[in-house]
Amino acid sequence: MLGSVEGPHDVKRLDVEELPRLANEIRDLLVDSCSRFGGHLGPNLGVVELTIALHRVFDSPRDPIIWDTGHQAYVHKLLTGRQAGFGALKQEGGLSGYPSQAESEHDFVENSHASTALSYADGLGKAFKLRGERDRTAVAVIGDGALTGGMAWEALNNIAAVRDLPVVIVVNDNGRSYSPTIGGLASHLAKLRVTRRYEDFLEYVKEKIGNVPVLYDALHGFKKGVKDILAPQVMFEDLGLKYVGPIDGHDEQAMEAALRTARDFRGPVIVHALTQKGRGYSPAENHDEDQFHSPGAFDRVTGAEKPKGRIWTDAFSEELVRLGKDREDIVAITAAMLHPTGLAAFRDAFPARTYDVGIAEQHALTSAAGLALGGLHPVVAVYATFLNRAFDQLLMDVALHRLPVTVVLDRAGVTGDDGASHNGMWDLSILQVVPGLRIAVPRDGERLAELLEEAVSVTDGPTVVRFPKGPVAEPVEAAGKLGEMDVLRAGDADVLIVAVGPMARACLDAAVLLDAQGISATVVDPRWVKPLDEALVLAARAHRMVAVVEDNGRVGGVGDAVARLLRDADVDVPVRTFGIPQEFLEHAKRAAILGRIGLTGQDLARQITEAVARRDQQVRSPSARN
Amino acid sequence: MLGSVEGPHDVKRLDVEELPRLANEIRDLLVDSCSRFGGHLGPNLGVVELTIALHRVFDSPRDPIIWDTGHQAYVHKLLTGRQAGFGALKQEGGLSGYPSQAESEHDFVENSHASTALSYADGLGKAFKLRGERDRTAVAVIGDGALTGGMAWEALNNIAAVRDLPVVIVVNDNGRSYSPTIGGLASHLAKLRVTRRYEDFLEYVKEKIGNVPVLYDALHGFKKGVKDILAPQVMFEDLGLKYVGPIDGHDEQAMEAALRTARDFRGPVIVHALTQKGRGYSPAENHDEDQFHSPGAFDRVTGAEKPKGRIWTDAFSEELVRLGKDREDIVAITAAMLHPTGLAAFRDAFPARTYDVGIAEQHALTSAAGLALGGLHPVVAVYATFLNRAFDQLLMDVALHRLPVTVVLDRAGVTGDDGASHNGMWDLSILQVVPGLRIAVPRDGERLAELLEEAVSVTDGPTVVRFPKGPVAEPVEAAGKLGEMDVLRAGDADVLIVAVGPMARACLDAAVLLDAQGISATVVDPRWVKPLDEALVLAARAHRMVAVVEDNGRVGGVGDAVARLLRDADVDVPVRTFGIPQEFLEHAKRAAILGRIGLTGQDLARQITEAVARRDQQVRSPSARN
Repeated sequence: MLGSVEGPHDVKRLDVEELPRLANEIRDLLVDSCSRFGGHLGPNLGVVELTIALHRVFDSPRDPIIWDTGHQAYVHKLLTGRQAGFGALKQEGGLSGYPSQAESEHDFVENSHASTALSYADGLGKAFKLRGERDRTAVAVIGDGALTGGMAWEALNNIAAVRDLPVVIVVNDNGRSYSPTIGGLASHLAKLRVTRRYEDFLEYVKEKIGNVPVLYDALHGFKKGVKDILAPQVMFEDLGLKYVGPIDGHDEQAMEAALRTARDFRGPVIVHALTQKGRGYSPAENHDEDQFHSPGAFDRVTGAEKPKGRIWTDAFSEELVRLGKDREDIVAITAAMLHPTGLAAFRDAFPARTYDVGIAEQHALTSAAGLALGGLHPVVAVYATFLNRAFDQLLMDVALHRLPVTVVLDRAGVTGDDGASHNGMWDLSILQVVPGLRIAVPRDGERLAELLEEAVSVTDGPTVVRFPKGPVAEPVEAAGKLGEMDVLRAGDADVLIVAVGPMARACLDAAVLLDAQGISATVVDPRWVKPLDEALVLAARAHRMVAVVEDNGRVGGVGDAVARLLRDADVDVPVRTFGIPQEFLEHAKRAAILGRIGLTGQDLARQITEAVARRDQQVRSPSARN
Repeated sequence: MLGSVEGPHDVKRLDVEELPRLANEIRDLLVDSCSRFGGHLGPNLGVVELTIALHRVFDSPRDPIIWDTGHQAYVHKLLTGRQAGFGALKQEGGLSGYPSQAESEHDFVENSHASTALSYADGLGKAFKLRGERDRTAVAVIGDGALTGGMAWEALNNIAAVRDLPVVIVVNDNGRSYSPTIGGLASHLAKLRVTRRYEDFLEYVKEKIGNVPVLYDALHGFKKGVKDILAPQVMFEDLGLKYVGPIDGHDEQAMEAALRTARDFRGPVIVHALTQKGRGYSPAENHDEDQFHSPGAFDRVTGAEKPKGRIWTDAFSEELVRLGKDREDIVAITAAMLHPTGLAAFRDAFPARTYDVGIAEQHALTSAAGLALGGLHPVVAVYATFLNRAFDQLLMDVALHRLPVTVVLDRAGVTGDDGASHNGMWDLSILQVVPGLRIAVPRDGERLAELLEEAVSVTDGPTVVRFPKGPVAEPVEAAGKLGEMDVLRAGDADVLIVAVGPMARACLDAAVLLDAQGISATVVDPRWVKPLDEALVLAARAHRMVAVVEDNGRVGGVGDAVARLLRDADVDVPVRTFGIPQEFLEHAKRAAILGRIGLTGQDLARQITEAVARRDQQVRSPSARN
């Protein structure tokens, strides 16, 4: 049946009796694809009926459906003509794991950062109003986890202020974001559940309020009854928002009825759907930790994941626990990613010293500032790309007060298959401007341990330690020291290669290849890339060219910092910088992307050889007048 | 009496009968100081009794008092031994207009960005708990306006999750942030007021609920009565927070009683104080627009402000209205700063096309993305330093989708007397990394109009237009064009000066002085600094040195971008970059700071002369081997 669905119009045409079969076929295909490539299985199994209902009630793309965070859009893709693409989900040239404007007119938002959907819907709704497009509705689907993000609050506050804004907000409440949702809001929602078992809870809800959608409104004096105990509508109504729910998100007909009620109101309405993450695939349903939030490839029958080997996150995780034993002042903070950032081990060892703040990076950093003001040393572990959310807080709340907070950036540099908004290619650039901040980039697991220990020993300002996704690099031993820098390879006076962290191996490979071309290269790893060691100036003076190689955007990164250091010292040795081109990268495996953008040993050797050749030619026949 | 108060212990020692006199003396001094230097008069007149009560109930600094946004801390300064400093408030070497760790052990947080206080308090409270400091309480004072910021929501959600967290949150509710507070929350709070007159409302509240503080708790089944109609405690209690209020914030004894109740609870409590901005100074009370939020110097008797002359903001304000007449798709967004950003005129002309989103920069940008997706061209006007809050949204929500949104940055570069966190010295650096973003820096009012028009004509991605605080620069006419750049002065082959926007005048002055030294300088204004015009490469080739001058942090700014452009083109002409040293600047007047950091014509001429001399010496006796 799924094969006959080429778009939303086909979904609308199906008989109600056919929908359960459609849902089953979708779940089969989801499990099959994800078992082969990995993917966000759990969240998508939870929104099958919800998505079918959305496409039967709304008229996409005239009614834009905005998927918060984006990883819950697989079912939406299946219903909008992209079934074939699931043969290569998240693979290079294949379907993106997130909505993609290039794939379909039904996709609007490609960013995977959480808590944004309501703001887009606010803007779209205002545009429809202003342009007189009275038949359009903006639909935002947001998880209960993403509601802990401050942006969602800002948006709710604004949406509520416009009485006739055509916005429908579907809260997909599975009680979990990446892992159990945290905080006061979560406790409140948890009260809705009464017992842990989803089915029991649903039964209770049905018994108490039935399945008939009602539009509640505190302002018009409806009677508060059992719903006050069950539902958070009081909070939403405090803001002046209409509320429908809670609805069983797996009862497709109930969802349709609720969505129709909301759509026809022509003003902002919240539809509260209760769903079960991993629904319909028992290994996911029974998975205690995260209901297969985003597994790698796995065995379809048993649900057993293929082993991943030791990754950078493991090296960090182990070292932090070790440091925590001696240093009682170390506390850890995560923004709803206890497991993915490796903090679970620290939590197990020191539960009272671990804080999960929800999807709230801004609060994570400023709460860390408070903890540091109170005499502790917080370690905030976050994916590199998500630190962009808390740039202002790191700058103004932590750095301005010179507070000892260590930020650990996982998934820095090219991450690959999660697409443009997951790549951590910004941090080494924007963090350069933060006064007093120190940044370490370990080249392997041993250096990660060493630099993390140095970072948490700093007492007069913040520190950052950043490392990439994937298997931890094999140790690269230093051949010597130059100031605080490690000399990885002592060469002659031709080229000084500054290898930033995990680029060490590629740079050493390049040096060997350069040697064969008659170009002798010294390779140094600065370890701390901010501030840069003054020894770098001396080293640069002793070479005819400096090449800086980093797994970060080329603009404003370590390359620019090295060039500035040398300029400021009146050292005008030519500098060439190699990094990620400053553009939004298409999804593919990390290794494939590094190859494509010229950051392998072979590519670097070729580019440096060419740069040296061009330089030699200029020196022989100078066209410039210096 | 104020003269006898050297610290909080003296405040505690005063008899209750003496407090009204103390309050009067404080108000006198506030009005006197602010009339001479300007300052945040209105907010501080509103917190006189509240601050006295805080220092009588809590034990600062053991109980840290965190002032959100910071400009409401004048009374706190007066009660903590800093009366003398009010003789030179906000003046160079004098008292800061914000809390300052260097001034007093009673000050913790120097950052003036809004909505952060609750997060600091969360961290401090957690530190007290963990370290077993059972007698300490973290106190956060936050305005109702700042509660519209997402960070405040994130913090509330976390604070509510820890039952025994020793945090007292004082909501200073004056119904206004910079101007009337916006959004659903504000409507809800507004309902508390019933009538516009503060006194009438207070009388009503007293009649209905009296002045006895009661600790409400929805979870333990207290009876809901009139308070449901009056107070937002339902919302806070949905989160599991205790709530006391509303309290008359000018009834010092009522405030003390409420604060004692909150303090002794040893868990998170919200104290809701109703205050009047400008209280006790009739020109402020009667000021319709913002109750003297932050006037310049004024006449004490009449309240008449000294005229300011035409500022950059005026040039923007007028041009946007002009553009709005032809372009019906232009809409304007402000984050609670309709007047300071100059959008009030646009609002007056096009009320339906103007959105004030509250202190919510994140939402401002993503809602703008939604408006652009809906076919409109949003202009988001914001102070440069506050855009840091929405960096992620500009990058991932606007730029990733190549949406035509124009961000207008006022108060860019050195702002001066508001201190470190108001200086807009970050934008030209961090915005460099945003793919597809174009940045214009006008050098005068005419160029501002011209570049704004070009910016709103761009359809395939975001644009930024940035300008400084203060009087708009006199027009500087171009002598010619070079690509898209304006040539302001054609010189010989010695030095190419790249003058970024308003640095044009200083660069031209420098060029004249350099001429006298026998150094001929060309001066160009690139107008658009991102992307840079390729003509710059040609121009650089024709000179022996390139000097880039910008009113932005030296790290990662236009200077680094020019150097990278030339490196990438294998043009190794020496580049020297001049900008703001990458540190947090002490408060002083903009002109004084520019002089101190070497960005005047005279300083630039001297530095460039020295750089040329060092370069000539190197060329004659090369120590490097290139």
